[in-house]
Amino acid sequence: MADQPTDAALRRTSRTKITPEREAELYEAVLELLRERGYDALTMDAVAARTRSSKATLYRQWGSKGQLVIAALRHGKPFDIDDIDTGTLAGDLREMARRTGRAACEDTELLQGITVAARQDEDLRLAMRELLIRPEGAVLDRALRRGVERGEVHPDNPALGYVIPALLGALIARPLIEDDYADGPYLEHFLDSVVLPALLGRPAPAHD
Amino acid sequence: MADQPTDAALRRTSRTKITPEREAELYEAVLELLRERGYDALTMDAVAARTRSSKATLYRQWGSKGQLVIAALRHGKPFDIDDIDTGTLAGDLREMARRTGRAACEDTELLQGITVAARQDEDLRLAMRELLIRPEGAVLDRALRRGVERGEVHPDNPALGYVIPALLGALIARPLIEDDYADGPYLEHFLDSVVLPALLGRPAPAHD
Repeated sequence: MADQPTDAALRRTSRTKITPEREAELYEAVLELLRERGYDALTMDAVAARTRSSKATLYRQWGSKGQLVIAALRHGKPFDIDDIDTGTLAGDLREMARRTGRAACEDTELLQGITVAARQDEDLRLAMRELLIRPEGAVLDRALRRGVERGEVHPDNPALGYVIPALLGALIARPLIEDDYADGPYLEHFLDSVVLPALLGRPAPAHD
Repeated sequence: MADQPTDAALRRTSRTKITPEREAELYEAVLELLRERGYDALTMDAVAARTRSSKATLYRQWGSKGQLVIAALRHGKPFDIDDIDTGTLAGDLREMARRTGRAACEDTELLQGITVAARQDEDLRLAMRELLIRPEGAVLDRALRRGVERGEVHPDNPALGYVIPALLGALIARPLIEDDYADGPYLEHFLDSVVLPALLGRPAPAHD
């Protein structure tokens, strides 16, 4: 599921004539522009100018600004959790929390800007859900399934259905509550205090 | 804490010459305009026109658009959880989840719009934190403290520090993951599946 391109992506890929190197260059330029200006102020004109390509090419290739931006984000692999398999569910989730927290801190402005814009822009919201949240969610789901198969989590434990909103929620909510990002240590502590006790069915150890 | 006005609010109150009825009328007009146009498109000019008051009065009275909007929201008591005291922590939190979910569904567009705008508008973000999140958080903290005093939760349980981000996070994250609001039943099930097991130290019952 994580790596299955959508029909639209397949259609575009089959049409493309640009090289992987050129594609990577374009994505880098989009991320640069996003960091400089934010999503709302980013225009296809600016991307075309910065990358010396035509706007028509950009639209033909990516369909919309939202899809180009998410493709660029996904190319940068902000979370990059696909290879995690530590042998225990707690180990897997902690490593995912660490990497996600690190990515969220490095590119908080960029990711926040995208999340904000996505709430008002349906095209961007669907691209984000399809190309970012769903693939990362599928990786997390596989880790949960391994935990169930190893007997670490009861297959009927209802917490299994809430791991993604709990972690994504903590990531988004912290900056609203206090002036701080949800970094790796915060997410890991949240995981150890709330998510893992609910999943593994034992009280969290009191941290000192 | 929930009811302590800020210094700025006190300063404004001491200056005010408008009656409570007039104030309520103004807040209603602001909420109406917010539902019609959203935060970004709402102008102090429009509030002045709709309420037949002068812009100078609005600024003198509330300081900024952000503060006026949050005062109007707070006046509408969107969550209204102050009186909850069921005798058990689970009962208190479930009732809070039900009311919060109901409010979030009734005024989702409005609350989402505010949350979105708050991420780019520091004045609005501080007003939201000070006048909405902190007071509701204080009510929730009192419920947690009663749970500790009754011996339902161990005072060192680290989950105590994450109840607010967990619930606020679930509220915000669900619409990003699926096209659905975090309504009362969703929040209550999240609470039963994740937050209460972590707090009370027993596995969640498998729901049928």
